[in-house]
Amino acid sequence: MYVVCVHVRVKPEHREDFLKASLENAACTVQEPGNLRFDVLQQADDPDRFLLYEVYQDEAGMNAHKQTAHYAKWRDAVADWMAGPRQGVKYIALFPPSDEDWAMRRP
Amino acid sequence: MYVVCVHVRVKPEHREDFLKASLENAACTVQEPGNLRFDVLQQADDPDRFLLYEVYQDEAGMNAHKQTAHYAKWRDAVADWMAGPRQGVKYIALFPPSDEDWAMRRP
Repeated sequence: MYVVCVHVRVKPEHREDFLKASLENAACTVQEPGNLRFDVLQQADDPDRFLLYEVYQDEAGMNAHKQTAHYAKWRDAVADWMAGPRQGVKYIALFPPSDEDWAMRRP
Repeated sequence: MYVVCVHVRVKPEHREDFLKASLENAACTVQEPGNLRFDVLQQADDPDRFLLYEVYQDEAGMNAHKQTAHYAKWRDAVADWMAGPRQGVKYIALFPPSDEDWAMRRP
């Protein structure tokens, strides 16, 4: 399981634009066969900071996401709304241990 | 839904100790009634950096976790294994929109 955390700080005047575009991107991404999660989070003590928590079955699933129309639309739309470059950090998932646990918490 | 991201950098010689203790803590935490997820992640480009991605039903669930024996055991065990203070960042979840989506991805 591959996880990407994308950290974004937005310009306050474009906060709602960013949120709308990101929710649309999230709704499309969770339909991708290689995607397991796309959580959109707003930092509790700073409403201009967001975290996108993206989980893919494998590296191929992560790369496939970058080829989608909804990703390209999001990337281009938000470019001028961010207060600085977004930062993506990749992780290897160690827990939960099984693929089933990632798709569904309590079977 | 409340999310806490706990960022940890460990001393290389205690990496395995930290991982073992954190996996034990994770396995206990996901049994808590107020917890929905406890993902343990290792940074892909730095094996000494970890992210604990914790999701709770609400703030009370998050606070209840801090009162558990398994949390206290983990906190005390890892204290000397970290290369610096751990950093916890709190988030409000905006997507997925429904509680059911958090517990289970594709009903």
